[in-house]
Amino acid sequence: MTKIPYRFYLTEDQIPKQWYNLRADMKEQPDPMLNPATLEPLKEEDLYPIFCKELAHQEMDSTTRYIDIPEEILEMYRVYRPSPLIRAYNLEKELKTPAKIYYKFEGNNTSGSHKLNSAIAQVYYAKKQGLTSITTETGAGQWGTALSEACAYFRLPLTVYMVKCSYDQKPYRKAVMQTFDANVVPSPSNTTDVGKKILEENPDTTGSLGCAISEAVEKATKTEGCRYVLGSVLNQVLLHQSIIGLEAKTAMEILGEYPDIVIGCAGGGSNLGGLIAPFMRDKIVDGKPVEFIAVEPASCPSLTRGKYAYDFCDTGRVTPMAKMYTLGSGFIPSANHAGGLRYHGMSPILSKLYHDGYMKAVSYEQTKVFEVATLFAKVETILPAPESSHAIKCAIDEALKCRETGEEKTILFGLTGTGYFDMAAYSAFHEGKMQDYIPTDDDLKIAFDKLPKVP
Amino acid sequence: MTKIPYRFYLTEDQIPKQWYNLRADMKEQPDPMLNPATLEPLKEEDLYPIFCKELAHQEMDSTTRYIDIPEEILEMYRVYRPSPLIRAYNLEKELKTPAKIYYKFEGNNTSGSHKLNSAIAQVYYAKKQGLTSITTETGAGQWGTALSEACAYFRLPLTVYMVKCSYDQKPYRKAVMQTFDANVVPSPSNTTDVGKKILEENPDTTGSLGCAISEAVEKATKTEGCRYVLGSVLNQVLLHQSIIGLEAKTAMEILGEYPDIVIGCAGGGSNLGGLIAPFMRDKIVDGKPVEFIAVEPASCPSLTRGKYAYDFCDTGRVTPMAKMYTLGSGFIPSANHAGGLRYHGMSPILSKLYHDGYMKAVSYEQTKVFEVATLFAKVETILPAPESSHAIKCAIDEALKCRETGEEKTILFGLTGTGYFDMAAYSAFHEGKMQDYIPTDDDLKIAFDKLPKVP
Repeated sequence: MTKIPYRFYLTEDQIPKQWYNLRADMKEQPDPMLNPATLEPLKEEDLYPIFCKELAHQEMDSTTRYIDIPEEILEMYRVYRPSPLIRAYNLEKELKTPAKIYYKFEGNNTSGSHKLNSAIAQVYYAKKQGLTSITTETGAGQWGTALSEACAYFRLPLTVYMVKCSYDQKPYRKAVMQTFDANVVPSPSNTTDVGKKILEENPDTTGSLGCAISEAVEKATKTEGCRYVLGSVLNQVLLHQSIIGLEAKTAMEILGEYPDIVIGCAGGGSNLGGLIAPFMRDKIVDGKPVEFIAVEPASCPSLTRGKYAYDFCDTGRVTPMAKMYTLGSGFIPSANHAGGLRYHGMSPILSKLYHDGYMKAVSYEQTKVFEVATLFAKVETILPAPESSHAIKCAIDEALKCRETGEEKTILFGLTGTGYFDMAAYSAFHEGKMQDYIPTDDDLKIAFDKLPKVP
Repeated sequence: MTKIPYRFYLTEDQIPKQWYNLRADMKEQPDPMLNPATLEPLKEEDLYPIFCKELAHQEMDSTTRYIDIPEEILEMYRVYRPSPLIRAYNLEKELKTPAKIYYKFEGNNTSGSHKLNSAIAQVYYAKKQGLTSITTETGAGQWGTALSEACAYFRLPLTVYMVKCSYDQKPYRKAVMQTFDANVVPSPSNTTDVGKKILEENPDTTGSLGCAISEAVEKATKTEGCRYVLGSVLNQVLLHQSIIGLEAKTAMEILGEYPDIVIGCAGGGSNLGGLIAPFMRDKIVDGKPVEFIAVEPASCPSLTRGKYAYDFCDTGRVTPMAKMYTLGSGFIPSANHAGGLRYHGMSPILSKLYHDGYMKAVSYEQTKVFEVATLFAKVETILPAPESSHAIKCAIDEALKCRETGEEKTILFGLTGTGYFDMAAYSAFHEGKMQDYIPTDDDLKIAFDKLPKVP
């Protein structure tokens, strides 16, 4: 290939036909999930009341390296994939950097984000098992939108618990989900016991992903033929999202490129885990010197300031416990506009990799993030989601370092989605009304003190 | 090619390097624009106070068949083009039709619509001439967004007069334009003489494209180093938008396909004119039996119920007069949510083709349009703009006719943009609050009676 194009698309038959399960190549496995009552490691069957069987199996399967993507899922992937790998020529020029910047853009579908990759898979398996409805939570609304879309396609009824501050800030997100026939409930709500309890304790709460998860899980386990699905954190989600990294790697290989640095924003870890998977394999198995950077908001810094400990995945403590970097399941982050990153914990797989030194992490304040989001929109003509803009900020910082040192590094980052539904945040930024919030050490200590005691 | 993919992308080097000027192949030319004072045909120089010189030239040039796209414009096209040609397999299945349905999807860029194709060209020429600012109007906000994006890229200050009902219905559209540094003014406004006059006569007006054009033109002609740009109707715009049709035709040729029917929504005609251009050439020059259908809202039916007559392009009567299908420049359409189609007139090129029998036209009420928009979103997983959904409705009707007759027609339609900023309209539809409005014959007679008298 003489000149690398701006946007590079694989062809339809180059879409991967298998997901890649990074656990099969990890030197050490993440610690197992625990039953909070017995503190015993969970078995696959223990998950059946929450997840459908195939997804419970994928959650526990740490040995099968490649897992076939069912044809029905591939059919739907073909409607919007492959996603483009974009060379950020304009951004490079703007930064006057010798670095080569690539981004894998996952916002090119109606849901506007990468979340659709796992939504399709989870709805397919639920439908195949004969379930009659599912529940979920959504933060920024990207997951809820993606899942609504997948449920409309497979015709499976859906209830979405939407974090209250997002529900209020983003009425049009709700409208999109309703266009896809979803039932959208602001969380915490009075429709569940755990929601009622949280509201009693803190009537003015703006909610959190942790609360919304509790409600969705309770609703699923108390409703016949219903299960819960989750858009991040879980091993199964990282498995499905590996399609991002697999496509990116194939595309880079065709272009004769390979990244020195791979960057992704990290809330629960779905995008980052999927993007880095095949490159992390190269580092673990072949010793390739790839650098990985997780980027999180300074307002919810689970990797950079959290503890690596067993914790509940939700605020209401109805889920199993996972070993992960956590701010404590009682931590309620400020109403940061990057709603998708407002989660107290982090994927156990990513937590383990970070703990074992395979990955770095940085955090940014949101005003700094919106500065680069605005710049990026102007030069690259894609309006990025606030979540994705965390990765942009880090990629720019790395590219600027290259300008200092003269190094011609190849940087790859994940541009997970578009910001069409985040215009209230963009407006707040432009009008100088956006504030930064960083939890104090005391804030964190209060939440850490409530971590469950696991020997 | 064994199986036609869902989404087919040309490669970057297959992006057309020339625009196609349909006028060079029309048997009869559209009637010339007239100077309203003298009723004499306009000369190119007469347009210099309004448009920059190169665009004035393109406006008048009816003989050059292919016009080179400057490299600077191609550079920017490469950032988001080629746009995909999509085979609507899911929609075909849903409709149980033997027809093959294709759509050219132009919503795959930040502006969310095809408007960017002409915005880039117009801003480039304005910048090249050394202008220091430009003005424009926007209806639904798609053109304003696209132009803001192009202006941010080429760093040229911009004032956008936004039709008041859109300004109120779509606060986030405004926010996007502001992200790209545009100055957005609701129209009619007190910043121009014509705006003041319209407000005096009708203080409660929700505005129209016609009013907003008057204001933008006045502002441009009264400001040093400023010119006006327009996103539709003009010959130059159809020229730039020919890239849609050229890409579509090349892609279909590679796939071994050719359309029996080409369908597009029509407000001022920018998308329809661009999409049909090379296929219309085949019909005019080679006698290919292609059918063309323009789709408009029943609330603003310029082709289906308008008169073919000389009229002003704007409500304030500050522009030259064009021979076109028009409802009268005094016609103020109802606050139809498909804001981009709320224009009293129609491209003179398309008007001439329609008048000479090369093209058909149909109109639909908006509730019918939102019904198919919702269906389309569910099966094709693209949330269509209300404007674009007019074309979907017609394509579905044609596909259903094929189901009746068993004909395996190949249908191509233009999906001009996404509906992310139209969620208020989608909500109104879902909540049963959307109303249809069809002007009565008396409504039209009042506007027709005010048409300028041209012998």
